[in-house]
Amino acid sequence: MKSYDIARIPGDGIGQEVTPAACAVLEAVGKRHGIVFRWRPFDWSCARLKAEGAMMPQDGISQLSGMDAILLGAVGFPGVADHESLWGLLIPLRRGLQQYVNLRPVRLMPGIQSPLVGRSGADIDFLIVRENSEGEYSDIGGRFADGTPAEAAFQTSVFTRAATDRIMRYAFDLAGKRSAKHVTSATKSNGMKHTMPFWDERFAAISAEYPDIATSQYHIDILTAHFVSHPDWFDVVVASNLFGDILSDLGPAIAGSIGIAPSANINPERDYPSMFEPVHGSAPDIAGKGIANPVAAIWSGAMMLDHLGEKDAASDVEAAMEKALLRSDCLTPDLGGPADTKGMTRAVLDNLSGSGAA
Amino acid sequence: MKSYDIARIPGDGIGQEVTPAACAVLEAVGKRHGIVFRWRPFDWSCARLKAEGAMMPQDGISQLSGMDAILLGAVGFPGVADHESLWGLLIPLRRGLQQYVNLRPVRLMPGIQSPLVGRSGADIDFLIVRENSEGEYSDIGGRFADGTPAEAAFQTSVFTRAATDRIMRYAFDLAGKRSAKHVTSATKSNGMKHTMPFWDERFAAISAEYPDIATSQYHIDILTAHFVSHPDWFDVVVASNLFGDILSDLGPAIAGSIGIAPSANINPERDYPSMFEPVHGSAPDIAGKGIANPVAAIWSGAMMLDHLGEKDAASDVEAAMEKALLRSDCLTPDLGGPADTKGMTRAVLDNLSGSGAA
Ligand SMILES: CC(C)[C@H](C(=O)O)[C@@H](O)C(=O)O
Ligand SMILES: CC(C)[C@H](C(=O)O)[C@@H](O)C(=O)O
Repeated sequence: MKSYDIARIPGDGIGQEVTPAACAVLEAVGKRHGIVFRWRPFDWSCARLKAEGAMMPQDGISQLSGMDAILLGAVGFPGVADHESLWGLLIPLRRGLQQYVNLRPVRLMPGIQSPLVGRSGADIDFLIVRENSEGEYSDIGGRFADGTPAEAAFQTSVFTRAATDRIMRYAFDLAGKRSAKHVTSATKSNGMKHTMPFWDERFAAISAEYPDIATSQYHIDILTAHFVSHPDWFDVVVASNLFGDILSDLGPAIAGSIGIAPSANINPERDYPSMFEPVHGSAPDIAGKGIANPVAAIWSGAMMLDHLGEKDAASDVEAAMEKALLRSDCLTPDLGGPADTKGMTRAVLDNLSGSGAA
Repeated sequence: MKSYDIARIPGDGIGQEVTPAACAVLEAVGKRHGIVFRWRPFDWSCARLKAEGAMMPQDGISQLSGMDAILLGAVGFPGVADHESLWGLLIPLRRGLQQYVNLRPVRLMPGIQSPLVGRSGADIDFLIVRENSEGEYSDIGGRFADGTPAEAAFQTSVFTRAATDRIMRYAFDLAGKRSAKHVTSATKSNGMKHTMPFWDERFAAISAEYPDIATSQYHIDILTAHFVSHPDWFDVVVASNLFGDILSDLGPAIAGSIGIAPSANINPERDYPSMFEPVHGSAPDIAGKGIANPVAAIWSGAMMLDHLGEKDAASDVEAAMEKALLRSDCLTPDLGGPADTKGMTRAVLDNLSGSGAA
């Protein structure tokens, strides 16, 4: 009997609805694999910000450091500026817990229709490895001549060799475990004349350490075009914080739904807990209606199991989820189906018990 | 008889092939509308950089200032770092000539197949208004501890109120002339905590000056996803330099081909000549083969005519181009056809003489 302490941070909006769904699935698969989850609930959110003046307590990071992993729903609230909520919670967690890899699979699932003509599952199956600790998301900068006609805003991107090299090595190591063994780098060294040429230099240096891995490199503008025109070109895509953010929304769009895309914020050294969260946001427009698609949260839960070393349990969840997606009567409205969050979750649970995996 | 001094800068690679095509079409339409073009050739390019040490002469900007417009092919050369060629020519021209608007139409043309399921011309027809003078493309920054493990690169984005306001006003004015009257702003105020909240503030302020124009605003990540899932949502999209760059490659991709997308670098005050160039690059892989698609250059020429006030001539070129695209035997290989650059150009010319527009 293995047991894990899991911080559970549903957050705001549909985060409150999809996190319980993911936990129910994890509980169920845990029973069959002899895994116990000790859920540690945290109410950190925009709601808490409104009530108590901060998204999380001052010692938030240290409260989490003893956990085995973190399951996050979504944060964001009408009336709270996005940069407040994110710099008040998501970004401090990613950085404070050294989760420097943001791993985002892009896969066209069985049962899901790609918006791209003639594309099937074989064409869309790749991983985005996003740098998650620095880059364009920086708090260096500010405002000049605030409120006057001469007003200007400045912001400085920061790319260190340490952080650039480690994210690239992660991407190459990952590619080494896949059959295509190919890493694509997202750059913009023609426009960003200081940071991106540096990124390219490091990509060349690290790729030299991996002679068996093929490489490509595209400027981010044409790379987004290639996602649409040639999704089959990609295996592992390594990108800066901002470019990875963009590609990991565009990727799920070509794979048919942003509502099902998962992500993992990983500290590969395991000095700190890693954090698993849907790519989607808190979706205030549908929050409270019980119709949010729980698949992204459930899939994120599967990534958590995988990270914890529970490979069999992770595969069971993925398989159950894939089967559920094939049943059009179990899909939520964002996928064109009639089901609600509970119905879709139930379909996953049913497949899990039917999987005979225990 | 009107006459215009046009700087003709074919540049590198296929720029050398598509620029003559555009000029031939402009000559032909000029004859029918009583317009004379006085072509002023400039050899500014990576080839010149190799031979003479600079992409353009030191007084390049002032050599161009007296022109009525500039027709540019493409720049870029294997062996010349992109940031050298661009910061040596394209970016200094855009900035030195105060071409602060980069206007890029995204339109699904008759005869072209969108890669998106079920999309027709009615769904994909919008304009990208890209800020072209500042933003993320900045030369402020540098390298710390070069060559050591502590190495880091820094780059500072600059957003001024003056430049932000003027690009937004341009977008709103343009939307006012269209039927949908809708402006979408590309932001990332959740991640970029200094520059993008400022961008949002200015968008709110300027939109208040235009009560009749509807607005939307999306973070760049989900906006790229919406280009794929909901291209019909867009009318005029206003974006920073980097975001506009990305969106104006992704846009043509959903509209079926980057090979035909045109762009205009505009100085709205007409203190300086504006510059018209295809979105595509110099394409070293097919350069010299005579098979480059000339449509982007021809369409850019039509945008030039429009800017010069020659609206009828501009419409004639667009109409001739649209008709040529309907003839599958006249398409270049990038569009799946058998024609070469000359053949495709001839098809446009044929339609032009058949248009009875003189
Ligand atoms: C070549 C490059 C610097 C340029 C840009 O990013 O501005 C190009 O991509 C464009 O869109 O005109
Ligand atoms: C909410 C936002 C700050 C965040 C990001 O850009 O990192 C989100 O888009 C994501 O991709 O996780």
